[in-house]
Amino acid sequence: MDNKIRLGIVGYGNLGKGAVEAIKQSPDMELVAVFTRRNPEALVLNEPGVKVLSIKDAVEYQKDIDVMLLCGGSATDLPEQTPHFASMFNTVDSYDTHAKIPEFYQSVDKVATEHHTTAIISVGWDPGLFSINRVMADAILPNGANYTFWGKGLSQGHSDAVRRVSGVKNGVQYTIPSEQAIEKVRSGSNPELATAEKHLRVCYVVPEEGTDTGAIEQEIKTMPHYFADYETEVHFITEKELKRDHAKAPHGGFVIRGGNTGQDNKQIYEFSLQLDSNPEFTASVLVAYARAAFRLSKEKQYGAKTVYDVTLGQLSPRSAEELRKDFL
Amino acid sequence: MDNKIRLGIVGYGNLGKGAVEAIKQSPDMELVAVFTRRNPEALVLNEPGVKVLSIKDAVEYQKDIDVMLLCGGSATDLPEQTPHFASMFNTVDSYDTHAKIPEFYQSVDKVATEHHTTAIISVGWDPGLFSINRVMADAILPNGANYTFWGKGLSQGHSDAVRRVSGVKNGVQYTIPSEQAIEKVRSGSNPELATAEKHLRVCYVVPEEGTDTGAIEQEIKTMPHYFADYETEVHFITEKELKRDHAKAPHGGFVIRGGNTGQDNKQIYEFSLQLDSNPEFTASVLVAYARAAFRLSKEKQYGAKTVYDVTLGQLSPRSAEELRKDFL
Repeated sequence: MDNKIRLGIVGYGNLGKGAVEAIKQSPDMELVAVFTRRNPEALVLNEPGVKVLSIKDAVEYQKDIDVMLLCGGSATDLPEQTPHFASMFNTVDSYDTHAKIPEFYQSVDKVATEHHTTAIISVGWDPGLFSINRVMADAILPNGANYTFWGKGLSQGHSDAVRRVSGVKNGVQYTIPSEQAIEKVRSGSNPELATAEKHLRVCYVVPEEGTDTGAIEQEIKTMPHYFADYETEVHFITEKELKRDHAKAPHGGFVIRGGNTGQDNKQIYEFSLQLDSNPEFTASVLVAYARAAFRLSKEKQYGAKTVYDVTLGQLSPRSAEELRKDFL
Repeated sequence: MDNKIRLGIVGYGNLGKGAVEAIKQSPDMELVAVFTRRNPEALVLNEPGVKVLSIKDAVEYQKDIDVMLLCGGSATDLPEQTPHFASMFNTVDSYDTHAKIPEFYQSVDKVATEHHTTAIISVGWDPGLFSINRVMADAILPNGANYTFWGKGLSQGHSDAVRRVSGVKNGVQYTIPSEQAIEKVRSGSNPELATAEKHLRVCYVVPEEGTDTGAIEQEIKTMPHYFADYETEVHFITEKELKRDHAKAPHGGFVIRGGNTGQDNKQIYEFSLQLDSNPEFTASVLVAYARAAFRLSKEKQYGAKTVYDVTLGQLSPRSAEELRKDFL
């Protein structure tokens, strides 16, 4: 078909790479170009027909790209890039600094409204699918409480902290949701739970040869902020085992609401993800929302949007008839 | 506040009763009247300010009711009632005969479009929340397979079959999703599974005094259609235990998608419900979608709609600002 949705990608880190893969799985879409801040000639993509260009050249592709996927980071890239690109393109991004979303929304909404573009912000799984489920559960069960658990997932910050410990050659840290806490929530008792009670921390550490592993374990477990407040496990493994068993970036988590209806009937609503690859899944969500951004812009629904402004009909590649017949 | 959404209920069975409870939990809504086919004077509601009226009098309440919740059954009530009421009111119903949804949609859409009303059909959890998750998972992970499991839940039809067995005084039957099948699906192996492999059947039977329980068990387990194809357990209990432990109508289930991204990374998407009261939960979903029906009609989005045509912003009682700030 000739009416494919034409996409561009800004940024070629793990998320941008995941977006390339996700677009390949979407027959109604095609990737036109990847834009990078690096020297484009140094970037080998191996995707026939896809240009690799300098981020500065994007301005010349306004007629060739329907939606731009912004795959930069939330700390410094997106606060600049989303308003910049939303002045020229429909965009989708994964801005995930929860506390700053309202101001980010304002700055993007102003630009997108002025320039008649549609910018869907904060797409992914949290914010994103988890946000959707927090709101859905709250709308259906007004008398209840929401719980979000993260993991099992590799935490970059905590892995770095482990690797800084003296005598540690290499290591990784997983955030694990507490089974005990999840069971409490699933029972419908709506307990009070601090973040430290909801999660435990499991470290896989490769010690330097001849090091006192007891001292390493002690130093990790008592490290303030990172581990001291948590139940922490430390396992010692070999470099070979680390490479074999801990090379991926898995993540996931749970959103659970315990609600009450009528005469104290407990109703448990639960959503969960278990992801082998966090960046590839997040990119897959971005690509699906690019379809919605394209359709919203066709309907002249301009401005900044969130997952709360999009219907499933706009998100799915399938027709309304097919959805009613085969999925409802 | 004086701008509450004014609701009516048609039908006062378990679903209608659940709707009364759900409206009480929704501060932005008020219940105006319950309409019944029975003699309204025989129906005691105990809800101050709520009228109980004959279903024939509904026509006189078009100016007093914003959305009518249709709480009849799918077999015979809703195919007549939804088109009838959609000619006068915005409506929400829980039509759940999956195979006939397309023709039901057509008949309701015609009436609602002509009369400028908004009719959200097939709302609840399956169809409803499960349908939403089947489409969301499919849109995000195109390369994968969806699985729906039902239970643990009381099945009315199978309970009736058990009670017809000679020597059975009373009994109930639960449909239970197979833990083994769920674990296979959660592993991401996307197995082929027949319905009988996905579920088992557990019966709690009160035998008549002096009956051969072995014969009862044998007759149940070999009953064609209902049990013969399934792994079935039969437990014998007393009438007192039946009343104490099996008086509620629990239900629930799982929608799971196993998807693959990139170089064979498995991504598991899961949604589940665990409900003490099936009718109260279904009614809570109807009430939330009544809010959306009201808002869609205000935007002149007339005709038949499904859960695929509604945004979370339209569903939630909270403002867009609050959702972005506290839930995204």
